[in-house]
Amino acid sequence: MNEDLKAVTVGRYLALRLRELGVEHLFGLPGDFNLSLLDEMLMHTGLEWVGSTNELNAAYTADAYARVRRSVGALVTTYGVGELSAINGVAGAYAEDVPVVQITGATSTTAATTRALLHHTLVDGDHGHFERAYREVTAHSEVLRVDSATQQIDLALLQAVRTSKPVYISVPTDVAVAVVDGSNLTWPLRRPQSDSLMLSQFRAALTERLTSTQNVTVLAGPRLHRRGLEAAVTSLAETPGVRIASQSGSKAILDEAHPRSLGTYMGHITRSQTVRELVDNADPIVLAGVVLSDLLTGFFSHGFDVSEAIALDLTEARIGGSRFYGVLLEDSLQTLKEVVSDLALEDEQTDTAYLGVAATETTGEPLSQAEFWYAVQQWLPKSSTVIADAGTAFYGALELAMPADSDLLGQPIWSSIGYTLPATLGASLGDTSKRAILFIGDGSAQLTIQELATMLHRGLTPVVFLINNAGYTVERAIQSPDAVYQNVTGWDWLRFPQAFGAGDRAATYRVSTGIELQEALAAASDNTATLVLIEVIMDRLDTPTILTELAAGLAAANTAREARK
Amino acid sequence: MNEDLKAVTVGRYLALRLRELGVEHLFGLPGDFNLSLLDEMLMHTGLEWVGSTNELNAAYTADAYARVRRSVGALVTTYGVGELSAINGVAGAYAEDVPVVQITGATSTTAATTRALLHHTLVDGDHGHFERAYREVTAHSEVLRVDSATQQIDLALLQAVRTSKPVYISVPTDVAVAVVDGSNLTWPLRRPQSDSLMLSQFRAALTERLTSTQNVTVLAGPRLHRRGLEAAVTSLAETPGVRIASQSGSKAILDEAHPRSLGTYMGHITRSQTVRELVDNADPIVLAGVVLSDLLTGFFSHGFDVSEAIALDLTEARIGGSRFYGVLLEDSLQTLKEVVSDLALEDEQTDTAYLGVAATETTGEPLSQAEFWYAVQQWLPKSSTVIADAGTAFYGALELAMPADSDLLGQPIWSSIGYTLPATLGASLGDTSKRAILFIGDGSAQLTIQELATMLHRGLTPVVFLINNAGYTVERAIQSPDAVYQNVTGWDWLRFPQAFGAGDRAATYRVSTGIELQEALAAASDNTATLVLIEVIMDRLDTPTILTELAAGLAAANTAREARK
Repeated sequence: MNEDLKAVTVGRYLALRLRELGVEHLFGLPGDFNLSLLDEMLMHTGLEWVGSTNELNAAYTADAYARVRRSVGALVTTYGVGELSAINGVAGAYAEDVPVVQITGATSTTAATTRALLHHTLVDGDHGHFERAYREVTAHSEVLRVDSATQQIDLALLQAVRTSKPVYISVPTDVAVAVVDGSNLTWPLRRPQSDSLMLSQFRAALTERLTSTQNVTVLAGPRLHRRGLEAAVTSLAETPGVRIASQSGSKAILDEAHPRSLGTYMGHITRSQTVRELVDNADPIVLAGVVLSDLLTGFFSHGFDVSEAIALDLTEARIGGSRFYGVLLEDSLQTLKEVVSDLALEDEQTDTAYLGVAATETTGEPLSQAEFWYAVQQWLPKSSTVIADAGTAFYGALELAMPADSDLLGQPIWSSIGYTLPATLGASLGDTSKRAILFIGDGSAQLTIQELATMLHRGLTPVVFLINNAGYTVERAIQSPDAVYQNVTGWDWLRFPQAFGAGDRAATYRVSTGIELQEALAAASDNTATLVLIEVIMDRLDTPTILTELAAGLAAANTAREARK
Repeated sequence: MNEDLKAVTVGRYLALRLRELGVEHLFGLPGDFNLSLLDEMLMHTGLEWVGSTNELNAAYTADAYARVRRSVGALVTTYGVGELSAINGVAGAYAEDVPVVQITGATSTTAATTRALLHHTLVDGDHGHFERAYREVTAHSEVLRVDSATQQIDLALLQAVRTSKPVYISVPTDVAVAVVDGSNLTWPLRRPQSDSLMLSQFRAALTERLTSTQNVTVLAGPRLHRRGLEAAVTSLAETPGVRIASQSGSKAILDEAHPRSLGTYMGHITRSQTVRELVDNADPIVLAGVVLSDLLTGFFSHGFDVSEAIALDLTEARIGGSRFYGVLLEDSLQTLKEVVSDLALEDEQTDTAYLGVAATETTGEPLSQAEFWYAVQQWLPKSSTVIADAGTAFYGALELAMPADSDLLGQPIWSSIGYTLPATLGASLGDTSKRAILFIGDGSAQLTIQELATMLHRGLTPVVFLINNAGYTVERAIQSPDAVYQNVTGWDWLRFPQAFGAGDRAATYRVSTGIELQEALAAASDNTATLVLIEVIMDRLDTPTILTELAAGLAAANTAREARK
């Protein structure tokens, strides 16, 4: 950097900090309170603007961008109308541990101080409502002031990378263009390291805890994925005596064909009784980056004793009742590997190989979920980012035996329908080495369909499976399948690429049998130059196996509630 | 009502209260935390479900529904993912004084108490985040409990009708289906009446204040519109010596052809110097239901002295420094009429007749904003609900001389782009006696386009003018017109009705000259059986006169801020 850092605008400082954290694309929409901010952030900073079609979609896009890069994603919105539209996406990033930086261009410091009745406010004089709303869904929030702006930016961004949670930065119009001393840019932001004393105490305690163990069973959760610790997990799996199961939010974080992989564990919904028992009866169980929420545990049907577990989390580790604050996940995981290696354990033979979706015949009959997912599994190319929407799509994809160098993105915790369509944009831009493969139902796609336009106009080449089963099949599986509110209007999906101005940047197929599906899959493989949209017609009540069981669990939860009345 | 009110479910109680307030349609989306609630609310209550394509659109739709009915509108969302997506629309209802009832199906009372780590939560055990976020943008919020649910519902709804602001009602799954004593349904909810002592004191003070006045100038604001006080305003206008100007949020609340109408007042942007001076120099000035925000006052360029004004607001009146709490707008307005009538004033002759958009020739040249709006003015049928999006559309429509029995809906305070497209659905369903006429730019329409599908599938027949000027023209008018962020992707707009499955329920036209526009307008008049979509091609830098002046004001505000640095 050759520029004079003694005098940079706040907007530029923020942009350069984001660049330092690996951000290359900014998502969002302009508005009169962020125009100057955008000018400062985009001028010779190396940040590329990707205009979103609305703010919710921008947040979803930034989330997926952060996920595939294992780093931060950022969006810029305007005050009030813009930022509030994005808040569901930012809350989802909180629930799913994704460090999204929500940046808002805000009313000027003077206007806020004098309580001016501006547009985009509630005209009650209080300019703080929206920042306070954001406090509920972010790990840190700052309204920048000129005299402390650079420090506030650094603190917010450090908190994002430390906690893997979203943060909120509000930039008043006057602050965006204020010239400040940016000398701190010569010191790169970095995540604080582990507390070395605590880490050595953890190592000693772990060594003692594992002294007489015969094997070590690890449940690998989504926070490992967010921290980009796949290689560390794979390295741990090289150690004899170790077995590694994944949660649904981190499926295939260890290659599912690996001999020490147990596949996905979800309590009573786990696909194999053997795997379920190995995890439930493990002593010790290591919970690494795990989230024990309802859908990840088969409605809290996990059988292991959490209070006795070895838990490795983002910024602390725990062995039973002993907590080791300030021990970072990457270090506790490395320590675990070293300690277990020293034990020189031996593998026990278990029959836990994961074979994926059961084979079906390809037929000319109406396509079933079972036949669809088997065909997808046989076709799925290596180096894919599979993105699957809450509902039939995610729980179908969860059954797939994943190909090498591939990843599954979804929201098993937040489960906001429509998330994945803008997420496909973020994943495509964020990691160009993998082709994005989207599975989304018609009910979900209706919420966020417009972001398809952004993908088309940028010439991106995902494969989009639009599962058209005439409404909210996941909700039908839970309750009142024939209620009027389960229906959505019938759209002619294949017309959308041309409506969005695709020209020759899209190919479309509609399939309703296995044979038609095979043809479309072959075409999608051959065509890596355009976006491929495949509308898949399936029955409105057909569901993948896991979803059937989950829906029964949700319905049972409802019944239990009603019985308690 | 013949049913046994001693035993009704909470969901049913809520539905019956909404019916009582005139609600016939519910907007929103299903989710697993609201399925039972929806079942209770829709079963034999007379409420019709209108499934929205996403929650933000549902909030916008409910807002317009409430506006055209001068009553409440309601939406039902699910916990977390659903309600947060709607929050911008609800905040807009707050800013614009619209009593929207935001109803959320929430996690069960037990789950919230035990801090269960459920999907759709932030998995931090705190189930209260989203209700707290909603407190920032609503006048009242309630999380229902079984033992007080009916009282909580009544209090929230009373607050909505009293303040004309949105309220939030969270219904845990167990509470939705709990059976409670609904006997209070025999007492209809009604807005509390004015404090009679305060009202008589106000009458005396007003009589004294007006004793020696020669005329009474009234600025009529949007809160009169929300209260449905058009007839009272018209009645006031029958009184000699009265002159009535409107704000942009209540354009044509008095017929603009009325001899005592001054048209729209916006401070220094007021279209006639005479009107501006009459309002600025009025003694007294009566501010009735007025909002003195930036865009409504030409950036606070109003010349009257607010502290000396007679101010009639929703629940209080003021004469200079004397406040009369508990005096409702409808009563203070009626009192004003009676007091002024007793004064037996005489009209002064002024030249303030509003002629609307200046005449232009119809040509075969590329269509200008000036030519477009003149043609629209000549065409606009009586009994129209004109709905115009923030930006060129609203400020163009503001220049129209409105036909009889017509209304202009927009958001001059909140100014959230995209609002009007779902609002057109709400207006069409809410008032079937008027045809909805939508004006929206391409940049705005991209945010919320999917709600067009709902209108098409219900066979609604609005006329939609899609102003295609290649991006965010309103932002270009303020700053950095050639910046990359001002562009939107180019869509083939006329293809959308068929993509949304319109079949024969839509007619489409693309016009780029005045002659083509005339043909499309004639076709729209002839065709009242389908939705009519007219894409209007205009230059990306062309703006209506008022917007040009407003944009200059916004740019000046930016410059002033920078100069103060």
